[in-house]
Amino acid sequence: MKKYSTQEFIDGIKDGNRMLLSRAITLIESAKPEHQDKAQEIIEGCLPFAGNSIRMGITGVPGVGKSTFIESFGNYVIKEQGRKLAVLAVDPSSSRTKGSILGDKTRMETLSNNPDAYIRPTPTAGSLGGVARSTRETITLCEAAGYNTILIETVGVGQSETAVHSMVDFFLLLMLAGAGDELQGIKRGIMEMADSIVINKADAGNQDAAKRAVSEYKNALHLFPPTESGWIPRVTTASALENKGIKEVWDIVDEFIRHNRAKGYLEKKRKEQSVYWLNESIQYELNQAFYGDKNLASKLDQYKKDVQEGRISSYKAARELLRLFRKA
Amino acid sequence: MKKYSTQEFIDGIKDGNRMLLSRAITLIESAKPEHQDKAQEIIEGCLPFAGNSIRMGITGVPGVGKSTFIESFGNYVIKEQGRKLAVLAVDPSSSRTKGSILGDKTRMETLSNNPDAYIRPTPTAGSLGGVARSTRETITLCEAAGYNTILIETVGVGQSETAVHSMVDFFLLLMLAGAGDELQGIKRGIMEMADSIVINKADAGNQDAAKRAVSEYKNALHLFPPTESGWIPRVTTASALENKGIKEVWDIVDEFIRHNRAKGYLEKKRKEQSVYWLNESIQYELNQAFYGDKNLASKLDQYKKDVQEGRISSYKAARELLRLFRKA
Repeated sequence: MKKYSTQEFIDGIKDGNRMLLSRAITLIESAKPEHQDKAQEIIEGCLPFAGNSIRMGITGVPGVGKSTFIESFGNYVIKEQGRKLAVLAVDPSSSRTKGSILGDKTRMETLSNNPDAYIRPTPTAGSLGGVARSTRETITLCEAAGYNTILIETVGVGQSETAVHSMVDFFLLLMLAGAGDELQGIKRGIMEMADSIVINKADAGNQDAAKRAVSEYKNALHLFPPTESGWIPRVTTASALENKGIKEVWDIVDEFIRHNRAKGYLEKKRKEQSVYWLNESIQYELNQAFYGDKNLASKLDQYKKDVQEGRISSYKAARELLRLFRKA
Repeated sequence: MKKYSTQEFIDGIKDGNRMLLSRAITLIESAKPEHQDKAQEIIEGCLPFAGNSIRMGITGVPGVGKSTFIESFGNYVIKEQGRKLAVLAVDPSSSRTKGSILGDKTRMETLSNNPDAYIRPTPTAGSLGGVARSTRETITLCEAAGYNTILIETVGVGQSETAVHSMVDFFLLLMLAGAGDELQGIKRGIMEMADSIVINKADAGNQDAAKRAVSEYKNALHLFPPTESGWIPRVTTASALENKGIKEVWDIVDEFIRHNRAKGYLEKKRKEQSVYWLNESIQYELNQAFYGDKNLASKLDQYKKDVQEGRISSYKAARELLRLFRKA
């Protein structure tokens, strides 16, 4: 395989070369220090050309129809809005072999064959912190490559939503109509992140239930306080299968972006996100240094047992561990 | 002022000596290293006698009637349940001079004069991390002093709820009946922490509105997934002013404790909380070391600006800062 220079990578990405984009993302996802160093140089080179996109997060429990929705929604924004779409994923639990989230491009057949769409499965392994960082850096490369709509998929079962929420402009929650227990499986707090809730699978025969769900969620959202920008989360229905309600979802995204851009909240939020990720990265590095310290590992285990059994206070244990850490 | 030895402190606290308890808490709250060291010794000495209490968190926006409720509830558990009560507070924004949360014992007049109640205002200053740690260590001393009901008050406006939630067995949210916007001012996510919601000020003339609020909240809570232990948050009304509904709140607490104790969730949760606070303390100490490093401060500011303006990636900035930190 030909070895490309950093500059060749940067130029290729800016030209929309998908092969070079993919290989650069692989460098981002690699754990090897020399790959990491090269990846960082490529990111630095792409940064001046990044930022000009609408970044969307999308979540929902398995079975809600995320792939079908993304296929339908993606085709709409490309064909009807003339946009270029990149689809990424954050799912630390996934692996390609298990065939989970975005693991199988064939589930988005039309989209994956569209030259204006770029689909990248989630990295195969790693901690949430690592996967989230990779994805965030991948956004930069995709934007530099001209994708002006970034869609980041995640599963509605854990902290990955918080990570995705912290890297997007707009957060969409896909739900199903059902009897009372619609939120089953959705982790507490996720509903409160949503800028819009879409009741999916509002197919023929299921529309009444979907409409009831809409009014239930509107009532529930009503109980939450308004967001800083004054945006009230929208609830709507869609049938990705029948291609219905898709334009309406885009209209909500569009309205949200215009609303927040006009008031300066879009830029403000992105700057806050940058500082958030700087601090997250600092935490990550500090934790790597501390928890990765092999000499500390057995001490840490012992202190854990001691605090659980009430033999030492958490604070004193932490202070003693830190003393050992800083001495090393 | 007489100087007491560590052993005198420990023995006095175990004997229920309130003066020594108060002075030991003052040592916990002190920033002076020699006070801290002594405080840690006292805590170590008290740990074997701690743990045997029901720990309750209570929150709600200013105006919801927290002080009156605590007064009423506290008198009930002391007189009718024969318990001993300690009331603590976590409110990093408060200060005694501003007369905020628990700043004025006169707001709980009967309770503060009751020999079976111990009321401790929130520490006057400090970061949330510092205040939370002080409060958590104060729980240990209060338990060793024989208080078997610990009530930790906080205000419903920020991260302090998460901190309190992580140190209690049971979390109570006080609300007011109102037209649709009951959650106004309550930070997103707090409702989902509640093991019970009490609509306070269900006084004569306000009972219908309170009953409507109960059914609204029951509906909203219904949309949330069940907790691990299978406990479904209870919604009830109370009039602290008229001393109504107070027994019912205690019955809920009692049922919750029995439910969770029987299933082993109470002990499991406490062990998880201990490890949580060990890791929190480690984070706190790591952050103190990093963000307190004077040589790094100006570098950090510069990197913040750079990531905001997109001149460097968050990750690269963090790595460079860490390199500087570890070299020092």
